[in-house]
Amino acid sequence: MIIIMKPEATTEQINTVVERIESEGMTAYLSQLDHQVTIGVAGDVQRLSTGGFNIYDGVERTVRVSSSYKLTSREFHPSDTIVEVGDLKIGEGHFVMMAGPCSIEGLDQIMECARIAKAGGATVLRGGAFKPRTSPYAFQGLEEEGLKYIRRAADYYDMKVITEVMDEANLELVCQYADILQIGARNMQNFKLLQAVGKTGKPVALKRGIAGTIDEWLNAAEYIANQGNMNIIFVERGIRTYETATRNTFDLSAIPVIKKLSHFPIIADPSHGVGVWDYVPAMAIAGVAAGADGLIVEIHPNPAEAWSDGQQSLNEKNYLNMMQQVDIMNEAMTKIREIKLV
Amino acid sequence: MIIIMKPEATTEQINTVVERIESEGMTAYLSQLDHQVTIGVAGDVQRLSTGGFNIYDGVERTVRVSSSYKLTSREFHPSDTIVEVGDLKIGEGHFVMMAGPCSIEGLDQIMECARIAKAGGATVLRGGAFKPRTSPYAFQGLEEEGLKYIRRAADYYDMKVITEVMDEANLELVCQYADILQIGARNMQNFKLLQAVGKTGKPVALKRGIAGTIDEWLNAAEYIANQGNMNIIFVERGIRTYETATRNTFDLSAIPVIKKLSHFPIIADPSHGVGVWDYVPAMAIAGVAAGADGLIVEIHPNPAEAWSDGQQSLNEKNYLNMMQQVDIMNEAMTKIREIKLV
Amino acid sequence: MIIIMKPEATTEQINTVVERIESEGMTAYLSQLDHQVTIGVAGDVQRLSTGGFNIYDGVERTVRVSSSYKLTSREFHPSDTIVEVGDLKIGEGHFVMMAGPCSIEGLDQIMECARIAKAGGATVLRGGAFKPRTSPYAFQGLEEEGLKYIRRAADYYDMKVITEVMDEANLELVCQYADILQIGARNMQNFKLLQAVGKTGKPVALKRGIAGTIDEWLNAAEYIANQGNMNIIFVERGIRTYETATRNTFDLSAIPVIKKLSHFPIIADPSHGVGVWDYVPAMAIAGVAAGADGLIVEIHPNPAEAWSDGQQSLNEKNYLNMMQQVDIMNEAMTKIREIKLV
Amino acid sequence: MIIIMKPEATTEQINTVVERIESEGMTAYLSQLDHQVTIGVAGDVQRLSTGGFNIYDGVERTVRVSSSYKLTSREFHPSDTIVEVGDLKIGEGHFVMMAGPCSIEGLDQIMECARIAKAGGATVLRGGAFKPRTSPYAFQGLEEEGLKYIRRAADYYDMKVITEVMDEANLELVCQYADILQIGARNMQNFKLLQAVGKTGKPVALKRGIAGTIDEWLNAAEYIANQGNMNIIFVERGIRTYETATRNTFDLSAIPVIKKLSHFPIIADPSHGVGVWDYVPAMAIAGVAAGADGLIVEIHPNPAEAWSDGQQSLNEKNYLNMMQQVDIMNEAMTKIREIKLV
Repeated sequence: MIIIMKPEATTEQINTVVERIESEGMTAYLSQLDHQVTIGVAGDVQRLSTGGFNIYDGVERTVRVSSSYKLTSREFHPSDTIVEVGDLKIGEGHFVMMAGPCSIEGLDQIMECARIAKAGGATVLRGGAFKPRTSPYAFQGLEEEGLKYIRRAADYYDMKVITEVMDEANLELVCQYADILQIGARNMQNFKLLQAVGKTGKPVALKRGIAGTIDEWLNAAEYIANQGNMNIIFVERGIRTYETATRNTFDLSAIPVIKKLSHFPIIADPSHGVGVWDYVPAMAIAGVAAGADGLIVEIHPNPAEAWSDGQQSLNEKNYLNMMQQVDIMNEAMTKIREIKLV
Repeated sequence: MIIIMKPEATTEQINTVVERIESEGMTAYLSQLDHQVTIGVAGDVQRLSTGGFNIYDGVERTVRVSSSYKLTSREFHPSDTIVEVGDLKIGEGHFVMMAGPCSIEGLDQIMECARIAKAGGATVLRGGAFKPRTSPYAFQGLEEEGLKYIRRAADYYDMKVITEVMDEANLELVCQYADILQIGARNMQNFKLLQAVGKTGKPVALKRGIAGTIDEWLNAAEYIANQGNMNIIFVERGIRTYETATRNTFDLSAIPVIKKLSHFPIIADPSHGVGVWDYVPAMAIAGVAAGADGLIVEIHPNPAEAWSDGQQSLNEKNYLNMMQQVDIMNEAMTKIREIKLV
Repeated sequence: MIIIMKPEATTEQINTVVERIESEGMTAYLSQLDHQVTIGVAGDVQRLSTGGFNIYDGVERTVRVSSSYKLTSREFHPSDTIVEVGDLKIGEGHFVMMAGPCSIEGLDQIMECARIAKAGGATVLRGGAFKPRTSPYAFQGLEEEGLKYIRRAADYYDMKVITEVMDEANLELVCQYADILQIGARNMQNFKLLQAVGKTGKPVALKRGIAGTIDEWLNAAEYIANQGNMNIIFVERGIRTYETATRNTFDLSAIPVIKKLSHFPIIADPSHGVGVWDYVPAMAIAGVAAGADGLIVEIHPNPAEAWSDGQQSLNEKNYLNMMQQVDIMNEAMTKIREIKLV
Repeated sequence: MIIIMKPEATTEQINTVVERIESEGMTAYLSQLDHQVTIGVAGDVQRLSTGGFNIYDGVERTVRVSSSYKLTSREFHPSDTIVEVGDLKIGEGHFVMMAGPCSIEGLDQIMECARIAKAGGATVLRGGAFKPRTSPYAFQGLEEEGLKYIRRAADYYDMKVITEVMDEANLELVCQYADILQIGARNMQNFKLLQAVGKTGKPVALKRGIAGTIDEWLNAAEYIANQGNMNIIFVERGIRTYETATRNTFDLSAIPVIKKLSHFPIIADPSHGVGVWDYVPAMAIAGVAAGADGLIVEIHPNPAEAWSDGQQSLNEKNYLNMMQQVDIMNEAMTKIREIKLV
């Protein structure tokens, strides 16, 4: 931690800060830079609140040196982590394709989605049984009935299931049916839920919050990891900005940033990232090019009849066309990875 | 709902949309505007997803006419709602002052905070026993012990208690000690929690999400209201923007907007709004001037020693000085309300 | 400037950075904090680019200690600057009221606006003759004809004129008619124009950019000030965020922040800040409460007929009602300023 | 244009709006939707301000049907426009690579940059002679001297020159040396400058504003196009958001959006998009995958010594490595384009 004093800070004010630091059992290092005194703090600063120092007279601001997450950081674990979902591997070159509807609407619909998903090469079936909806009057999901349907469809087509868990109360139930627990964007900082999924040990797909910073996202993963669960998959799904031409602003640069700072895999969700189906294929392959370890996309046999997110769902024809593009892109990325190593 | 067709939409594409509308039992009204056909949809559109129409060929976009919240809207309840917390009234000219520390740190600290809060005129004591923190290694609150302390301090000084509830699991516990349940910014769209606090019937202070739109905020309130709980207080606490000179961007214009669209009271939280203690008094009185029904501020006997949020907490002297300003402002607002009515 | 090295930085990498610093004739101070080496740089760092250091292997990031603006900072000029416009004073308790239409539409319209503005107590008449419009097909202003009209109207009612200058080519022309040159939000970082208005010595009202940070805004003022023109008035007019209930997000906390960091006066523009006329009075008085040295608002004899910005313009009745509120608020602020000094 | 009346609007209020519409020589179409009356307006609405209607009692809001740009829209020109710069073609499968330093620092530096750029396959040399800098004390560019150097370097290596023009005063000068005029992000809405470059007829690279919406960007292009200059290249360079892990948030989804709405080519600038050199290659190839018609990147023989933007500049080795990746990506995109057509 570095404390930057104001240019007009008095010696007395500086001494007060130094005394406080020393009273906490830490060491203060003073430098005079640009007409301002800066005070480096060495010791177990993790437990100090930066705010505590900002309050002292003469202090301009406080700068953190080290990040607050540990298990999630690449420093802690320099090589890529591969998340295993049964026999399926995700990360370090193991590309995963997840597809399915926004909501599970019935057994026929999810069976048909599974058929299409599988035909395009997906190995994980997505579908929501508990739906977080802005309005309480919108469709909230089929709940356990939906979970049964998606499990059945996935088993029939030999796929894994990813589905959202919204609260602790239903966690045990969701765990019975799901292979990967999805934490939705609105729950990225629902810390109690993060701890609870951490305790299950199950693979967790952690979506970035609607306005989550990358630093907060890494810290959210730390809530799961420090419960002993190292099966974390980051999901970039777009952030909220002023732009309205797309549903969110799809921040693909989060992919190289996360890969630099963390060892966990990261996949891209172009459906939520842009929110308009005809932009999805372009952004899916851009996500692969940016280095994503996989994709998750919304498909529907008949998007116009979808109970939710129809406008961002691909129909069979468009999904299969996109998957051909994804295959070409994955081939190109294999060659590109070789070049990077040179 | 209005569907705007593309300029190049064919008659066949228009007919397909109209047929879909009619198959749902609704009526379609066509107009030709600016070389584009628009289709008004009349009937029970609440259950339709706008996305469903965007997917049709030839559709440019879909515009909602009516809002999706009802009980929360001023249309539903044209006069101001007064929320009653025991003998305390909030709203329609009844100004409420809430003050206290970010975290409850011990009995002595919260007793001292209560003394200061009361001395300045506050009638509600704030303090967190369950703390949502970005890092799992930061102080997470004293939990039930903290709840006991704040209750004791509030009772001693004849104040009400407002404290945050973070999850359903602890809701019953928090209800035993609190008079007002606070839903934190990170939980504005934790819909399961909103429904659960809705069922308690207790007054709920609903903070705006870190990136919550006003429309989402009103819909979040609807999740509480449609459980039969009409004791809702909105809390504007700043939103996330690109600006870093303040912790958040304090959106005081949300106050007149909420007052126009809803009947529930709204209070301002300048401490989180700006995050720097010496900007708090100016923004507190600005909040009153914008029409807030009350304020909630962070105070601490010794902000430099605070376990959290020290940099935005007022000490006794600064808080009491601010409260003198607030009193003058409230007098001015009484006169201003009379002028507005003319 | 402080350079924070990565935890894994080698001694060789640290030495490379230190050598570079010393080769620039500056001094390096090393500290070991939180398992990371930090290097303070003392000397004439203003001319160094922070980017230059980030590129070295082993460097995590670089933190600036001092701000890059000087003449604009309160450090340079601790007491408030009063900007004088003829006999009119702005700043340090001298409150200024500016009102007028968005666009000058004709002599009758601007005369009528001046009459209304004056009746409410305004001493400065606003009105655009050169209009920056998103679309090239929208009304672009009456140009010199408009300038003549606004000058005549202001003279008739003994008011000053504020009007926007959009480019250097028309600067001399605008200077002939205007008392205060307005730099619009889109031009906050049009550095050539800033330098040009700096050279005129005329009072300049510098609007905050649509996405301008406060730091950039202060630096923009520095472009004017370092041409020798210390007659600068900041204008907060709202920033662009994700919220769409208002035209912009009116960042009133910029007022105490600017007052802390700079000595120049700052006024508030609630018309652009919220963009909806019926929110304007509440936000105008909130601006006064936040400490603004004045207000600038849009009025129109018949907003429904306005050629631009009708939806945010006040008619005569609403403007006069607002001005009564502003007067009460100014009285309250006089009392509040006394309390602050205690 | 569609006017949505409030649910409580009276017949009298509706009639007032209808009369106004008819008095403008347009036709009003009424529908009753969701308990609210909507009024479609047909006729020459381009010259009406939406704001004018919002001001009427009983009006909730006004929705535009058609966009305000014409020449820029794909409707106006359904096939892709190819911009020709001498013998160089940009757009419709003609991929362009632009590279060079942020600032021209001297003849040796720009010659060396040109050599490297060319070696990687670039055909356009970038380099700033007039630099828009946040602080007036930062390096502002070598001006005409710099222009001479870049021209000489480009001619030597048989490349084209792209360089920024910041103001009308220097436009003629810049035109003497440049093949493509760059409009910087801060000037996206400097409408006088847009009109001036429009009149030159020269190819213009129009960067997206720091907080520019895609709609504003298209309208900015219209300012150039309606001067008769159809040689426009859009440049996506990242937008300002709350995220600080990257310099900007690189909005690659703007590429498919622009391609859908406009016929002009669009290229990607990953250097400014992310602002950190080691994320540039990943985002460059992601940009190609998203469908960009080219790339513009910053390179420097020795980034640590760069006078500006060193942290985002690639050195020779990294640039050449990236270009190998770009080549593979372009091959993949050729295959992908064939699949899309099926």
